[in-house]
Amino acid sequence: MYPKMRMHYSSTNTARRFCLRIGVLLVFAALAGAQDPLPSWNDGAAKRAMVDFVVRTTKSDSADFIPPAERIATFDNDGTLWVEQPLYTQFTFALDRIKALAPQHPEWKREEPFRSALSGDKAAFAATGHAGLAQVMIVTHSGMTTDEFEKTVTEWLETAHHPRFHRPYTKCVYQPMLEVLAYFRQSGFKTYIVSGGGADFMRPWTESVYGIPPEQVIGSSLKTRFEMRNGVPVLVRLPEVNFIDDKDGKPVGIDLTIGRRPVAAFGNSDGDQQMLEWTAAGKGMRLMLLVHHTDAQREYAYDRKSSVGRLDRALDEAKARGWIVVDMKSDWKTIFPPMHAGSQSKAVSAR
Amino acid sequence: MYPKMRMHYSSTNTARRFCLRIGVLLVFAALAGAQDPLPSWNDGAAKRAMVDFVVRTTKSDSADFIPPAERIATFDNDGTLWVEQPLYTQFTFALDRIKALAPQHPEWKREEPFRSALSGDKAAFAATGHAGLAQVMIVTHSGMTTDEFEKTVTEWLETAHHPRFHRPYTKCVYQPMLEVLAYFRQSGFKTYIVSGGGADFMRPWTESVYGIPPEQVIGSSLKTRFEMRNGVPVLVRLPEVNFIDDKDGKPVGIDLTIGRRPVAAFGNSDGDQQMLEWTAAGKGMRLMLLVHHTDAQREYAYDRKSSVGRLDRALDEAKARGWIVVDMKSDWKTIFPPMHAGSQSKAVSAR
Repeated sequence: MYPKMRMHYSSTNTARRFCLRIGVLLVFAALAGAQDPLPSWNDGAAKRAMVDFVVRTTKSDSADFIPPAERIATFDNDGTLWVEQPLYTQFTFALDRIKALAPQHPEWKREEPFRSALSGDKAAFAATGHAGLAQVMIVTHSGMTTDEFEKTVTEWLETAHHPRFHRPYTKCVYQPMLEVLAYFRQSGFKTYIVSGGGADFMRPWTESVYGIPPEQVIGSSLKTRFEMRNGVPVLVRLPEVNFIDDKDGKPVGIDLTIGRRPVAAFGNSDGDQQMLEWTAAGKGMRLMLLVHHTDAQREYAYDRKSSVGRLDRALDEAKARGWIVVDMKSDWKTIFPPMHAGSQSKAVSAR
Repeated sequence: MYPKMRMHYSSTNTARRFCLRIGVLLVFAALAGAQDPLPSWNDGAAKRAMVDFVVRTTKSDSADFIPPAERIATFDNDGTLWVEQPLYTQFTFALDRIKALAPQHPEWKREEPFRSALSGDKAAFAATGHAGLAQVMIVTHSGMTTDEFEKTVTEWLETAHHPRFHRPYTKCVYQPMLEVLAYFRQSGFKTYIVSGGGADFMRPWTESVYGIPPEQVIGSSLKTRFEMRNGVPVLVRLPEVNFIDDKDGKPVGIDLTIGRRPVAAFGNSDGDQQMLEWTAAGKGMRLMLLVHHTDAQREYAYDRKSSVGRLDRALDEAKARGWIVVDMKSDWKTIFPPMHAGSQSKAVSAR
């Protein structure tokens, strides 16, 4: 049927009118439910704003049309795509690695921050401050090749479970956000992760869980060194920070890696504020969205006072500038995907 | 016709035989000229190796099949995709910028390396060594926003001409390599630039010239700082090196940005040696290729003794390990694209 239709509507003006009509139909269909691209979202301002943005920026005759090459959408990971409470998953991984590596380091029983990390003495560990945390992160993330580290992350994720939800961390992802990722990709957007977490901690699993390939994952990193070992080249992870992809670092990381400004940005904390500001300052229609964790019963409720994923100044700026703030409790019909279903995002080809 | 054929060949085995036959036909067609994907290449070992690689890695029933997501091909830029003699284009740009900025810096008439850069005293400039060169590069590449720098590069390329070929630098690209880029993309490979040159110097034009979008350009970089200027966020380019994407740095840059190992790598100098080693060490079929500049008449002839684009140890390794070495003089029918034709790569959608 399609070739016939195309012949009918061959003059430019008629084609434009036809496209416009299709556009209007798409909004209608999208909002009507039969082909609802965001079924886990309740009807509300957040859902309507996303559908409106996608429809207006992808209709070829729209004043807000964005060419496919410029459809870059960036997503924070911790607290935006998956659970970040009670502790960032990567910190939990690091603490588990400390336990696994302890037999090779008998001195850790006496030396901080390892002593308290091993004994589970939270107050003593907290007293070691940022320096203690950084030491735990660096010791557990360096000293091996990139291939070895990838294997360690993959094996850990196969067995580790979230302490409250009793499911693998890769199943502690937000079903409504999986739908947003798929909807944006189906509409020709290239979806990127831009996270304060380590790129190498995310890349082993983002493709199967989110449909986001490794080359679209931007994150913090350690320095690596190219080395020949018995004639085989390896990349060795060094105990030295290369880049922190958080706060001011997010626009920097986006510019370094993508070299284009996003047209849509999704976050949940003050760490995402500059990414949203950078996105908002581009020309043309833009979408800025923050997930507000308001649901203590089904997930967590936290914002201005939280040490993990604090949302304070960015929340004020969102209100002042009209960015979308998702109220998890009222906007999301469900939080997590079903435990035994395949990842929805797998069905959608990565872009 | 296609749907009917598909119905005919519905059993898996028959389908496989059919695909195999199609595969053989493709090699034949590719080499026969009627649908020659590399018309500017003479028949020879280099061309046959590339076609063989593409056919064997993209046939779904081939033992060497590579899934589309893993089809990453990386290309050096200077000397591999465009001319790098008598001087890297980016250095020429920097020297022109010194002249343009000189009126704001009267002290440059007295201070090296600026004095000799302005007067064209090559011996005196050379005597300032790497430090002098680095100073010229940093002074001309920092102190402005990323948007301002992009504008400066774009405007310079619109008027600058190569001193010998009297054409814009973006027309001093190699027609045979444009065909390789297009052929690989048509075969489902994602083409990346991995260059010692500045990513921000390449990104303004790689999409229109090579069909390679900014997010697939990996290069050297300066540090940038996120700043608010009158309420508008900008990224300011700082006079500090962030990353040198050359030699050992190429596998590091690939891992940082792509997070996957390439399956094909194209270079022309010792600066590409580690990228080719890193590529070669992956599992499965791999393609490593070096362009050897052997054509003083149509372009340049240089290798082991050249200060620009030296090809010495990588040439030895290529011979020892059977990497493809292109003999520009005998392998390439033509060097540059026609001056007034649209870029061939424009016709091919970027991947």
